[in-house]
Amino acid sequence: MSTIVVEVMPKAELLDPQGKAVAGALARTGRGRFDVRVGKRFELTVDGPIDDETREAVREIAAEILSNSVIEDVVGIHYPTGEREEVTA
Amino acid sequence: MSTIVVEVMPKAELLDPQGKAVAGALARTGRGRFDVRVGKRFELTVDGPIDDETREAVREIAAEILSNSVIEDVVGIHYPTGEREEVTA
Repeated sequence: MSTIVVEVMPKAELLDPQGKAVAGALARTGRGRFDVRVGKRFELTVDGPIDDETREAVREIAAEILSNSVIEDVVGIHYPTGEREEVTA
Repeated sequence: MSTIVVEVMPKAELLDPQGKAVAGALARTGRGRFDVRVGKRFELTVDGPIDDETREAVREIAAEILSNSVIEDVVGIHYPTGEREEVTA
Protein backbone atom coordinates (compact mmCIF):
# COMPACT_ATOMS: atom_id res chain seq x y z
CA MET A 1 0.00 0.00 0.00
CA SER A 2 1.37 3.43 -0.91
CA THR A 3 -0.06 6.77 0.12
CA ILE A 4 0.17 9.91 -2.01
CA VAL A 5 -0.67 13.27 -0.42
CA VAL A 6 -2.34 15.98 -2.49
CA GLU A 7 -2.47 19.51 -1.09
CA VAL A 8 -5.04 22.04 -2.26
CA MET A 9 -5.19 25.68 -1.15
CA PRO A 10 -7.43 28.64 -2.01
CA LYS A 11 -5.89 30.79 -4.75
CA ALA A 12 -3.55 33.30 -3.14
CA GLU A 13 -5.32 36.32 -4.58
CA LEU A 14 -8.72 35.28 -3.24
CA LEU A 15 -10.13 36.27 0.15
CA ASP A 16 -10.14 33.27 2.50
CA PRO A 17 -13.01 33.85 4.95
CA GLN A 18 -12.27 30.64 6.84
CA GLY A 19 -8.68 31.70 7.29
CA LYS A 20 -9.74 35.15 8.45
CA ALA A 21 -12.09 33.57 11.01
CA VAL A 22 -9.32 31.38 12.42
CA ALA A 23 -6.87 34.30 12.50
CA GLY A 24 -9.46 36.36 14.39
CA ALA A 25 -9.95 33.58 16.93
CA LEU A 26 -6.19 33.30 17.49
CA ALA A 27 -5.84 37.05 18.02
CA ARG A 28 -8.88 37.21 20.34
CA THR A 29 -7.57 34.36 22.48
CA GLY A 30 -4.17 36.04 22.75
CA ARG A 31 -2.37 33.31 20.85
CA GLY A 32 -0.54 35.68 18.62
CA ARG A 33 -0.94 37.45 15.27
CA PHE A 34 -1.02 35.01 12.37
CA ASP A 35 -2.26 35.24 8.81
CA VAL A 36 -4.12 32.00 8.26
CA ARG A 37 -5.20 30.20 5.11
CA VAL A 38 -7.20 27.01 5.20
CA GLY A 39 -7.00 24.33 2.52
CA LYS A 40 -7.47 20.61 2.04
CA ARG A 41 -5.16 17.63 2.41
CA PHE A 42 -6.00 14.40 0.61
CA GLU A 43 -4.40 11.03 1.25
CA LEU A 44 -4.80 8.70 -1.73
CA THR A 45 -3.78 5.13 -0.92
CA VAL A 46 -3.21 2.58 -3.68
CA ASP A 47 -2.33 -1.12 -3.67
CA GLY A 48 1.05 -1.91 -5.15
CA PRO A 49 3.83 0.38 -6.39
CA ILE A 50 3.35 3.88 -7.78
CA ASP A 51 4.18 3.83 -11.48
CA ASP A 52 4.08 6.63 -14.07
CA GLU A 53 0.50 5.76 -14.97
CA THR A 54 -0.56 6.22 -11.34
CA ARG A 55 1.31 9.52 -11.14
CA GLU A 56 -0.44 10.78 -14.26
CA ALA A 57 -3.80 9.65 -12.89
CA VAL A 58 -3.14 11.44 -9.57
CA ARG A 59 -2.18 14.67 -11.34
CA GLU A 60 -5.40 14.52 -13.34
CA ILE A 61 -7.49 13.65 -10.27
CA ALA A 62 -5.89 16.48 -8.30
CA ALA A 63 -6.59 19.04 -11.00
CA GLU A 64 -10.07 17.89 -12.01
CA ILE A 65 -11.72 16.31 -8.96
CA LEU A 66 -9.89 17.26 -5.77
CA SER A 67 -9.68 20.97 -6.57
CA ASN A 68 -11.88 23.63 -8.14
CA SER A 69 -9.52 25.34 -10.57
CA VAL A 70 -11.56 28.57 -10.42
CA ILE A 71 -10.85 29.19 -6.73
CA GLU A 72 -8.16 26.70 -5.72
CA ASP A 73 -4.64 25.63 -6.62
CA VAL A 74 -3.05 22.21 -6.21
CA VAL A 75 0.06 23.32 -4.32
CA GLY A 76 1.81 20.00 -3.96
CA ILE A 77 1.73 16.26 -4.54
CA HIS A 78 3.90 14.24 -2.17
CA TYR A 79 5.02 10.66 -2.85
CA PRO A 80 6.09 8.13 -0.19
CA THR A 81 9.65 8.44 -1.46
CA GLY A 82 9.69 11.93 0.01
CA GLU A 83 9.60 13.39 -3.47
CA ARG A 84 7.39 16.45 -3.86
CA GLU A 85 5.86 17.62 -7.11
CA GLU A 86 5.25 21.33 -7.44
CA VAL A 87 2.09 21.79 -9.43
CA THR A 88 1.69 24.99 -11.43
CA ALA A 89 -1.98 25.91 -11.56
CA MET B 1 7.31 36.54 6.80
CA SER B 2 7.49 32.83 7.62
CA THR B 3 4.82 30.26 6.89
CA ILE B 4 4.23 27.18 9.03
CA VAL B 5 2.01 24.39 7.67
CA VAL B 6 -0.20 22.40 10.04
CA GLU B 7 -1.78 19.21 8.75
CA VAL B 8 -4.89 17.74 10.37
CA MET B 9 -6.49 14.43 9.38
CA PRO B 10 -9.49 12.44 10.65
CA LYS B 11 -8.44 9.80 13.20
CA ALA B 12 -7.41 6.66 11.33
CA GLU B 13 -9.92 4.44 13.11
CA LEU B 14 -12.88 6.67 12.23
CA LEU B 15 -15.03 6.35 9.11
CA ASP B 16 -14.30 9.21 6.70
CA PRO B 17 -17.52 9.76 4.71
CA GLN B 18 -15.96 12.55 2.65
CA GLY B 19 -13.09 10.27 1.72
CA LYS B 20 -15.48 7.47 0.83
CA ALA B 21 -17.45 9.85 -1.42
CA VAL B 22 -14.32 10.95 -3.27
CA ALA B 23 -13.12 7.34 -3.63
CA GLY B 24 -16.51 6.40 -5.06
CA ALA B 25 -16.34 9.23 -7.58
CA LEU B 26 -12.86 8.16 -8.69
CA ALA B 27 -13.96 4.55 -9.16
CA ARG B 28 -17.16 5.55 -11.01
CA THR B 29 -15.24 7.79 -13.39
CA GLY B 30 -12.76 5.03 -14.11
CA ARG B 31 -9.82 6.87 -12.58
CA GLY B 32 -8.67 3.95 -10.57
CA ARG B 33 -9.17 2.35 -7.16
CA PHE B 34 -7.95 4.56 -4.33
CA ASP B 35 -8.66 4.71 -0.62
CA VAL B 36 -9.14 8.39 0.10
CA ARG B 37 -9.03 10.37 3.33
CA VAL B 38 -9.74 14.08 3.44
CA GLY B 39 -8.21 16.43 5.98
CA LYS B 40 -7.24 20.05 6.41
CA ARG B 41 -4.11 22.00 5.64
CA PHE B 42 -3.46 25.28 7.46
CA GLU B 43 -0.87 27.87 6.50
CA LEU B 44 0.04 30.10 9.45
CA THR B 45 2.13 33.09 8.42
CA VAL B 46 3.97 35.20 10.98
CA ASP B 47 6.10 38.32 10.75
CA GLY B 48 9.71 37.80 11.70
CA PRO B 49 11.65 34.66 12.60
CA ILE B 50 10.15 31.52 14.12
CA ASP B 51 11.48 31.17 17.66
CA ASP B 52 10.76 28.54 20.31
CA GLU B 53 7.90 30.59 21.69
CA THR B 54 6.23 30.64 18.27
CA ARG B 55 6.76 26.89 17.89
CA GLU B 56 5.14 26.25 21.27
CA ALA B 57 2.23 28.55 20.37
CA VAL B 58 1.72 26.75 17.04
CA ARG B 59 1.70 23.33 18.75
CA GLU B 60 -0.92 24.57 21.16
CA ILE B 61 -2.98 26.21 18.41
CA ALA B 62 -2.81 23.06 16.32
CA ALA B 63 -3.98 20.85 19.16
CA GLU B 64 -6.62 23.13 20.63
CA ILE B 65 -8.02 25.29 17.82
CA LEU B 66 -7.14 23.83 14.43
CA SER B 67 -8.15 20.28 15.28
CA ASN B 68 -10.90 18.55 17.22
CA SER B 69 -8.99 16.02 19.33
CA VAL B 70 -12.04 13.74 19.56
CA ILE B 71 -12.16 13.01 15.82
CA GLU B 72 -8.94 14.42 14.36
CA ASP B 73 -5.17 14.13 14.71
CA VAL B 74 -2.53 16.75 13.98
CA VAL B 75 -0.35 14.66 11.69
CA GLY B 76 2.41 17.12 10.99
CA ILE B 77 3.76 20.64 11.48
CA HIS B 78 6.14 21.81 8.77
CA TYR B 79 8.54 24.71 9.18
CA PRO B 80 10.06 26.78 6.33
CA THR B 81 13.43 25.18 7.07
CA GLY B 82 11.99 21.93 5.71
CA GLU B 83 11.88 20.50 9.20
CA ARG B 84 8.81 18.44 9.97
CA GLU B 85 7.45 17.80 13.45
CA GLU B 86 5.59 14.55 13.96
CA VAL B 87 2.81 15.19 16.43
CA THR B 88 1.56 12.30 18.54
CA ALA B 89 -2.12 12.75 19.21
